[in-house]
Amino acid sequence: MRKDRITVHYEEKPIYDIVFENSFDKLAEELQLLDSKNRKVCIVTETKVESLYLEQVMKIMKPVCKELICFVFPEGEASKNLDTVKDLYEKLIQYKFDRKDLLIALGGGVTGDLTGFAAATFLRGIDFIQIPTTLLSQVDSSIGGKTGVDFHAYKNMVGAFHMPKLVYINVNTLSTLPDREFNCGLGEIIKHGLIKSKNYLDFIKENREKIKNRVPEILKELIYGSCMIKKAVVERDPKEQGERAMLNFGHTLGHAIEKKMDFSMLHGECVALGSITALFISYQMGRITKEEYEENRKLIEWFDYPSLPDNIIPSELVEITKVDKKMENGYIKFIILKEIGEAEIVKTVTDDLMKEAVTCLIQDVSLS
Amino acid sequence: MRKDRITVHYEEKPIYDIVFENSFDKLAEELQLLDSKNRKVCIVTETKVESLYLEQVMKIMKPVCKELICFVFPEGEASKNLDTVKDLYEKLIQYKFDRKDLLIALGGGVTGDLTGFAAATFLRGIDFIQIPTTLLSQVDSSIGGKTGVDFHAYKNMVGAFHMPKLVYINVNTLSTLPDREFNCGLGEIIKHGLIKSKNYLDFIKENREKIKNRVPEILKELIYGSCMIKKAVVERDPKEQGERAMLNFGHTLGHAIEKKMDFSMLHGECVALGSITALFISYQMGRITKEEYEENRKLIEWFDYPSLPDNIIPSELVEITKVDKKMENGYIKFIILKEIGEAEIVKTVTDDLMKEAVTCLIQDVSLS
Repeated sequence: MRKDRITVHYEEKPIYDIVFENSFDKLAEELQLLDSKNRKVCIVTETKVESLYLEQVMKIMKPVCKELICFVFPEGEASKNLDTVKDLYEKLIQYKFDRKDLLIALGGGVTGDLTGFAAATFLRGIDFIQIPTTLLSQVDSSIGGKTGVDFHAYKNMVGAFHMPKLVYINVNTLSTLPDREFNCGLGEIIKHGLIKSKNYLDFIKENREKIKNRVPEILKELIYGSCMIKKAVVERDPKEQGERAMLNFGHTLGHAIEKKMDFSMLHGECVALGSITALFISYQMGRITKEEYEENRKLIEWFDYPSLPDNIIPSELVEITKVDKKMENGYIKFIILKEIGEAEIVKTVTDDLMKEAVTCLIQDVSLS
Repeated sequence: MRKDRITVHYEEKPIYDIVFENSFDKLAEELQLLDSKNRKVCIVTETKVESLYLEQVMKIMKPVCKELICFVFPEGEASKNLDTVKDLYEKLIQYKFDRKDLLIALGGGVTGDLTGFAAATFLRGIDFIQIPTTLLSQVDSSIGGKTGVDFHAYKNMVGAFHMPKLVYINVNTLSTLPDREFNCGLGEIIKHGLIKSKNYLDFIKENREKIKNRVPEILKELIYGSCMIKKAVVERDPKEQGERAMLNFGHTLGHAIEKKMDFSMLHGECVALGSITALFISYQMGRITKEEYEENRKLIEWFDYPSLPDNIIPSELVEITKVDKKMENGYIKFIILKEIGEAEIVKTVTDDLMKEAVTCLIQDVSLS
């Protein structure tokens, strides 16, 4: 089986492809399939990615677009808000973009989410393409049409479901990714294994050394596998009315950590730590064994996430989860493992158990 | 045939009902059908409608909602922007609204569009209900799922398609509507006749006196007829990829007038004047006779729209249309009549012809 293209469907119909490449060269070809010669195109990116890839990407795209402009915003989660979106709207108005024109998100999850939301709402919706350049966005946020921005300190409070027309993954961009960001992606990748596929999780465990050393062939295999898992989930549940919520494994306390730390930690780092708390809760609720908890906690920790400061007060994190969006009729919907490779939603996780999980995360206490 | 309920479909499936009532009393019953007892509900309205109806509506709804709050913003088009939407998000966060909760738009087009957009984007989309209280919103903006806000001086530049769960029309609210606003609705109603149904247009012509005097039975018939036309159009083309664009008859120069006048004229007034220009262009392009132009211009003018100041410069209006959203690949898509009761899109309307149409509108010159 050739592992260079996955087609994502919506209500049985093919909607967009995820393509796996080792460079940006094929972008021109892919764009032409989307009638780019008749469209204005705006590449949206942030300052760091701008310095690494923008020139190269613009050079490849320019000959195949009617008009090509770019919009660059300051890197980081702090830019993921309505103000940046408004600046982007202004640019699009200035260049008289119309409904047939196209946005391209070049960058990580912040860029993809923000660009997708602008595309979802400009003139009630225009097309957009994802070119994810981080591991996290390649395996997770670029797939499935979730778009959004933060509002005050609330993550993704404002958003829309809006499918991209293409996800173009150049796995070579990972060579420039700082370790911290690379590890962020691993957090989501391990999560995919934990909730959906014991086989895939075993593959990660067996290759953990090569993954850390970023052996290209292993990385491609790893990303492809994660995209296959994510694709299958979003196809079965595009609007997050059921199964898709499982992808939020680790996110309930993860988001709370992210917010409490005032976004000084990266999203993937917070999700990795959140996953450890969710593993702990899965163990305490009798779903997985102590050994499974410890083995998988070790796998996560193998990728060197920063520790939570030990002055964090567990009850404060729990309080933050209450304003998070995974509430339903006032109940926290918490995702735990049913077993390794399968997740379930429970509404019976008590505040005390969450506090205990955070305490255990901070103190790394031995389990009795 | 009972004319008290129309079901609107999307891809053959029934999505929401438009109900026609003479009071707000049936709201409780309709809400319960939507499981309101298990949901927090926020009524969104503006200052004028607040003083007229909010207390009454809240009293009816309170017993059938889990929790009922309201959000009131200053009346007028100037409030239809992202700042008001942000204030609404804040209120919803403050009251811990979640994905299962519900917004209700109580008011005219501004309220409906803005509330719909907030509903489309809060937590990536929550349910909302339209309770249109103006003639314009009853026959037009509340139906079809177009939501949005203005951005700087650009009308509906930011928005989304998001269907309501119910449109509840209390035709008695028209008794409190100022003449200017009532006439605004008539502008859209005549437009429906012009583009879709000569029979309906004849009904308006025959009953113009009774309509002006707001005879309740005639008004109900009038609104029902207009909703039937709009429903049929949005069902065939929910995302405005074809036929639905015909509803923008009169809007190209209408929006330009609205903007040029700095929103001092009402939307429906501008559309009425825009419709006269579109009639003129339809006549000049040989689609309708001089008599048809004059007869229908007279019908529109019978409803007392304010005149355009005679210092308006036609070329400036034409320039404004260029940044409007009904451009496609740089061409103005202009909607004209193919004949009375049928519209078509043409891309051959010259700037000169538009200027001439505006001149004729201002000067009311006799046609040769």
